[in-house]
Amino acid sequence: MMKGSTIEGGGVISRRKGLARGLSIMDFILRIVAAVGTLAAAIAMGTTDETLPFATQFIRFRAEFDDLPSFVFFVVANSLICGYLVLSLILSLLHIVKSSAVKSRLLLVVLDTIMLGLATAGASAAAAIVYIAHYGNPKPNWFAICQQYNSFCERISASLIGSYLAAAILVILIIFSAVAISRN
Amino acid sequence: MMKGSTIEGGGVISRRKGLARGLSIMDFILRIVAAVGTLAAAIAMGTTDETLPFATQFIRFRAEFDDLPSFVFFVVANSLICGYLVLSLILSLLHIVKSSAVKSRLLLVVLDTIMLGLATAGASAAAAIVYIAHYGNPKPNWFAICQQYNSFCERISASLIGSYLAAAILVILIIFSAVAISRN
Repeated sequence: MMKGSTIEGGGVISRRKGLARGLSIMDFILRIVAAVGTLAAAIAMGTTDETLPFATQFIRFRAEFDDLPSFVFFVVANSLICGYLVLSLILSLLHIVKSSAVKSRLLLVVLDTIMLGLATAGASAAAAIVYIAHYGNPKPNWFAICQQYNSFCERISASLIGSYLAAAILVILIIFSAVAISRN
Repeated sequence: MMKGSTIEGGGVISRRKGLARGLSIMDFILRIVAAVGTLAAAIAMGTTDETLPFATQFIRFRAEFDDLPSFVFFVVANSLICGYLVLSLILSLLHIVKSSAVKSRLLLVVLDTIMLGLATAGASAAAAIVYIAHYGNPKPNWFAICQQYNSFCERISASLIGSYLAAAILVILIIFSAVAISRN
């Protein structure tokens, strides 16, 4: 009887360890995906400019991402998050090897949560401006510049995808960490 | 020796329980503060309109929050978060009574994380528009409407405070929950 219950207890522990390790491996993969997403978002936005094929004597019509402060914030935020995600891979790798680690998981929860705030803030500030660029707004007479700057608008819209993807992944990472902590 | 170590073990457990209970009480208070913040933000933004004291024969100059989709999203997001925070007080109260609860804390981590995303998204989308309203942008010829609509702009700017406060508190709540889970 004693032996039986010990084996059963060991089974529960190894099943828990197996779950924690599985979560750690998923965590590692998702961090890479999110890092690629933010990198693509930062590069797509940060290299966007368009010069229209016509000009008056004095004005050249040119749109660059850094004309708008929200887009600059978007690039800075996504670069920061990408850098953080790459660095966090070290801890994530440690969790695959040592699945019972709790303190380093807590550290990742704290940092992931702050980065989630940064990611949604950057993406949404940019999205609000992209919306105005596409549709304009009749009340304050803000024009829909996308009617002229087509390729500019396509790129800034596309770059939002990577950033929102990273935000969604960060939500999943925080939940994974919390579950892994609760199993130890 | 045996007795001594048992008492010591009991001391560690009761200290852990004390910490978990302390975190639960802080959690409860912070949720009330955040709920008040989001409620104030939603009301301040949702009741904002200003009619200028002059008009032409055909146009009355009037600014309302729902002229701008970002502001509508802000009000909806903050109302949702406020409702969630009030409901979550029940679970928070349960954690003060039963500080060893893990599953309900995990549930709060999941929901808090999603609400954090919603809070920063709403606040930042509105902030991006408030920034344009204040300073305009010369490149796409978006005018700084705050030069005319003074009180409108003061209210939409002030309403951001409650929303960002709630976002900051949600970050703290997620960290508290993760720490409390790690102690059980």
